[in-house]
Amino acid sequence: MAKVKKQPRPKAETPKGFRDYFGAEVTQRAEMLRTIAGVYHRYGFDALESSAVETVEALGKFLPDVDRPNEGVFAWQEAEDEGKGDWLALRYDMTAPLARVYAQHRNDLPTPYRRYTMGPVWRNEKPGPGRFRQFYQCDADTVGTSSMAADAEICAMLADTLEAVGIARGDYLIRVNNRKVLNGVLEAAGIDGDATRDAVLRTIDKFDKVGEAGVRELLGQGRLDASGAYIDGVGLSPAQAAPVLAFLTSKGAAAGETLANLRAAVGESDFGAEGVAELQAIADLLEAQGYGPDRIVIDPSVVRGLGYYTGPVFEAELTFEILDEKGRTRQFGSVAGGGRYDDLVKRFTGQAVPATGISIGVDRLLAALHAKGRISAEARGPVVVTVMDRDRMADYQAMVAELRLAGLRAEGYLGNPKNFGTPLTYADKRHSPAAVIEGADEKARGVVQIKDLILGAEIAAQATLEEWQENPSQIEVPRAELVARVREIVERGQS
Amino acid sequence: MAKVKKQPRPKAETPKGFRDYFGAEVTQRAEMLRTIAGVYHRYGFDALESSAVETVEALGKFLPDVDRPNEGVFAWQEAEDEGKGDWLALRYDMTAPLARVYAQHRNDLPTPYRRYTMGPVWRNEKPGPGRFRQFYQCDADTVGTSSMAADAEICAMLADTLEAVGIARGDYLIRVNNRKVLNGVLEAAGIDGDATRDAVLRTIDKFDKVGEAGVRELLGQGRLDASGAYIDGVGLSPAQAAPVLAFLTSKGAAAGETLANLRAAVGESDFGAEGVAELQAIADLLEAQGYGPDRIVIDPSVVRGLGYYTGPVFEAELTFEILDEKGRTRQFGSVAGGGRYDDLVKRFTGQAVPATGISIGVDRLLAALHAKGRISAEARGPVVVTVMDRDRMADYQAMVAELRLAGLRAEGYLGNPKNFGTPLTYADKRHSPAAVIEGADEKARGVVQIKDLILGAEIAAQATLEEWQENPSQIEVPRAELVARVREIVERGQS
Repeated sequence: MAKVKKQPRPKAETPKGFRDYFGAEVTQRAEMLRTIAGVYHRYGFDALESSAVETVEALGKFLPDVDRPNEGVFAWQEAEDEGKGDWLALRYDMTAPLARVYAQHRNDLPTPYRRYTMGPVWRNEKPGPGRFRQFYQCDADTVGTSSMAADAEICAMLADTLEAVGIARGDYLIRVNNRKVLNGVLEAAGIDGDATRDAVLRTIDKFDKVGEAGVRELLGQGRLDASGAYIDGVGLSPAQAAPVLAFLTSKGAAAGETLANLRAAVGESDFGAEGVAELQAIADLLEAQGYGPDRIVIDPSVVRGLGYYTGPVFEAELTFEILDEKGRTRQFGSVAGGGRYDDLVKRFTGQAVPATGISIGVDRLLAALHAKGRISAEARGPVVVTVMDRDRMADYQAMVAELRLAGLRAEGYLGNPKNFGTPLTYADKRHSPAAVIEGADEKARGVVQIKDLILGAEIAAQATLEEWQENPSQIEVPRAELVARVREIVERGQS
Repeated sequence: MAKVKKQPRPKAETPKGFRDYFGAEVTQRAEMLRTIAGVYHRYGFDALESSAVETVEALGKFLPDVDRPNEGVFAWQEAEDEGKGDWLALRYDMTAPLARVYAQHRNDLPTPYRRYTMGPVWRNEKPGPGRFRQFYQCDADTVGTSSMAADAEICAMLADTLEAVGIARGDYLIRVNNRKVLNGVLEAAGIDGDATRDAVLRTIDKFDKVGEAGVRELLGQGRLDASGAYIDGVGLSPAQAAPVLAFLTSKGAAAGETLANLRAAVGESDFGAEGVAELQAIADLLEAQGYGPDRIVIDPSVVRGLGYYTGPVFEAELTFEILDEKGRTRQFGSVAGGGRYDDLVKRFTGQAVPATGISIGVDRLLAALHAKGRISAEARGPVVVTVMDRDRMADYQAMVAELRLAGLRAEGYLGNPKNFGTPLTYADKRHSPAAVIEGADEKARGVVQIKDLILGAEIAAQATLEEWQENPSQIEVPRAELVARVREIVERGQS
């Protein structure tokens, strides 16, 4: 007789590049998003939650940054209409959906439209260590105004947000640059032709890595890199390279000095002068609002995003040092970026609408707070009421209800208590602050035992055997004092 | 010369069956989810956010309810491996992912594992009015215990949750039934064979609609329905139908009476007796915790979900009346449901793991609070500082910064003020409580004008022309009093 072929069991795994988040990972992120939303709200921004699924047509074919692959979305075709259904896709960022939302609802939305949004986005990219295909974005944008006051406001809001979530003043810096200044510099250098322009932009992007001397070589004839390979240069003359280098190194001690250097770097370029004037306007507005250079600075060495944005560009960096995987100290680095982009909805309506905004890397920011010890990885578990006598479950659950009613996190142990140790092992696994025990003897005497598990763990780690046997982490209290005494232990554990 | 063919513009629309959520829709839901999470946390439940994307293999081929189509997910194939990539899909509920998570992480998770989760799910179904293909679910489940204390706890938690979000005691009722009792009744009625069984289950499902007499006819020979069509019956004898009808109508004035009626209905069935004992245990536990029949009742007429769950079944109904679209009063109805299901992870591990849980319909619950007037549809907008002189933008933004620093929601008007009316129209659209005006004259005199827009709207609606012209809704105050006077207006508007 032929054997019946067994259906193979499905694998219990997330798809490659996806992960689950547990306990404190979820609640700490939720708490951070709530804090950020509070600041955004105070700044007059309104919440938006657009659908996670968009038509591929509305998303456009390309991801916004030149760095990213041209494909990279999760997409599928609607089954309807005999294979002629719309192609749908998961959003890959919050900006493309904002463009669609603004174009769709523009008659109902106020102008300017300040909106914030927070939620997951999806990228169909090759996953890697720490690189996931679903992650959170938290964006704020102002649509429909070309006023630099909108850009300055975004920078001020970003500073307030970082402080609100727990990054101390002095531990972050928001740096501001402007694409128009760069364009002016390119004009002053007499660089035209898209190919040369792109090559110069790519070289500028390497400033952080290779420094002034390296960029000078790469803008000229080329450079021998650290590995010994020769990298061809862009082929600019030293005279052409000079404004570019002046731009990259124009940061002075104060905004006035930086702006004067930039004015020199853009030479006769009208476009460049416009960019410098924009930076001046932002600096003036921020000064009037009390945001000094300890929080927000004009910094022409900010190059990230310069290829994508069309005016001011912002970047928030955390300036404290952490240890990397190899034990070397390095600056924590960027946690947010943004800038001004024109033509937000032009694809849809034919009409150019200016916009400016910021995107916060929520998971990076959480990692920073962990690195600074501002939030702990482990959340405190519930008080566990052990079950000594299964027939008296109702009594135990009544104790649990009493504790909960008093606002304490509590639960009865609902596992199968083969022996007394099981519920205590469980309480350990949950990082419970306390366990409550009421056996037949305690019941008869009108008392309960309370084990202080935090103190117990400390004693276990430090105490001698004798001290351990005295067991001061367990107390016997009258049943009527249950809630009050448990509260003392829980509150002591929180402090 | 041939004309250059223009690329057609993309349509600015969500895909069919999807929608966007704006302002208060987003923040009110977030606030509700936060409140619910607070209750769940207090009960010892831990947060989980599983990935939105699962392998089709892990989700399984079928949606959980028999009512739903067998297909119905948004799925696509990974591009890798020459067309042999995994099929991935968006989760259609939170239970299938819980099974995968528990199977994947069972060695690291505590047992029992109490978890809650909240977020969007996606259904590839035909959209209709009020029926969307992306919506929120908010679930809590206890995995790994067969104790009825877990089921009772879920019911108590649901009651606490409804009260925490603003449903008053007396405005809701949680009803509890048990699948095993039904199975016992079918056994007592001598019904076997899957086809007959399924037909009886379908008939029971119609109890709410056709009542006892209707079910009696449908269990027997059949019934002429309201439209005049004859519906064939299941063909049971009156003796066979009797236990089913006794089951459906067994609800008494108190739990004891109901349970006695059920004991009679299940006759000699051991399975039925087990179900009645489970209901008895739940009733006893809830009584000990102080959850009386004004909040949670044993009610055998709960039939929804009986086909899917394997033990206790819960349903939360809001009992107050609302007007439907046609102006008729009806009970608001169900906002949450759940129950006990075995074999949660058996598909993955071969091992049966019992679980019990609840799912809250967050959007239904929000609709209920709107219907009761507990939350208002319009959120208050920011205080708007108007821009009278564009060269003095820094002054205006400094005022805004002062208001924000004082915790007031505020913004400068950043639109293009062609005339004075524009920023006030904007403030109206934002439902702003106040507008601040400082022209050259006010600046010279060291004062500002504050328009109370809430009072202004009231006056505009009620006042005579003369009263309107006196314009008491606008006050002039010293610049130094700006924050204090604006705060008064904002706080008056909130009360």
